[in-house]
Amino acid sequence: MDVLDFEKGGGLLPAIVQDWETREVLMLAYMNAEAYRRTVETGRAWFYSRSRDAFWMKGESSGHVQEVREIRIDCDADAVVLLVHQIGGAACHTGHRSCFFRRVEGERWVTEGEPLFDPKEVYRK
Amino acid sequence: MDVLDFEKGGGLLPAIVQDWETREVLMLAYMNAEAYRRTVETGRAWFYSRSRDAFWMKGESSGHVQEVREIRIDCDADAVVLLVHQIGGAACHTGHRSCFFRRVEGERWVTEGEPLFDPKEVYRK
Repeated sequence: MDVLDFEKGGGLLPAIVQDWETREVLMLAYMNAEAYRRTVETGRAWFYSRSRDAFWMKGESSGHVQEVREIRIDCDADAVVLLVHQIGGAACHTGHRSCFFRRVEGERWVTEGEPLFDPKEVYRK
Repeated sequence: MDVLDFEKGGGLLPAIVQDWETREVLMLAYMNAEAYRRTVETGRAWFYSRSRDAFWMKGESSGHVQEVREIRIDCDADAVVLLVHQIGGAACHTGHRSCFFRRVEGERWVTEGEPLFDPKEVYRK
């Protein structure tokens, strides 16, 4: 049976989100079994927030949803990769294309690239 | 100060390992502060095994070490990407290039590609 191992991570497993075309890693978030089920069923990326203790669909506030093109499973079945088309072009809540927008340079972290949107505009109520 | 947040994950954070040239995601493992320090200092990928409760350098048994070309940090500073040159061409203990060698197809997982080495040969004592 092809079953994910949610036990090792206490009910959650890490989901790496990668751009379908450029293969850039956009973000990492967590899924429980229900978030995974919703992702497979809807073709959009759903996660489980540890800090808010709640489900969320990426883009539910910003409109920047992730259309899932492919799901890959690792050897231990305790991590997944989602290959997505990122609506709006930016995955990070800071407006950067990728959440991994900082590069380590010696003792310091260097920000690369400019935000593609203004979070104050996108996330305002 | 540029400091990683190891607290959120109980002392560990996920490290995504990506091929420096092809941008393929090779594996996901965990680091504590000491594994991160060793990685920065040695230029080789070190992790912390949750199941074995021990440090390990990728390739210490197999010889398939990961030469770290770049480290990237995410917006919350609780996840990292290592861009690496994978010695031996395969990151997975199964012999596959990537640990994410299975693709979800409906209810089933389909293995893609062939192992590049025989684990019985590489990991024998």
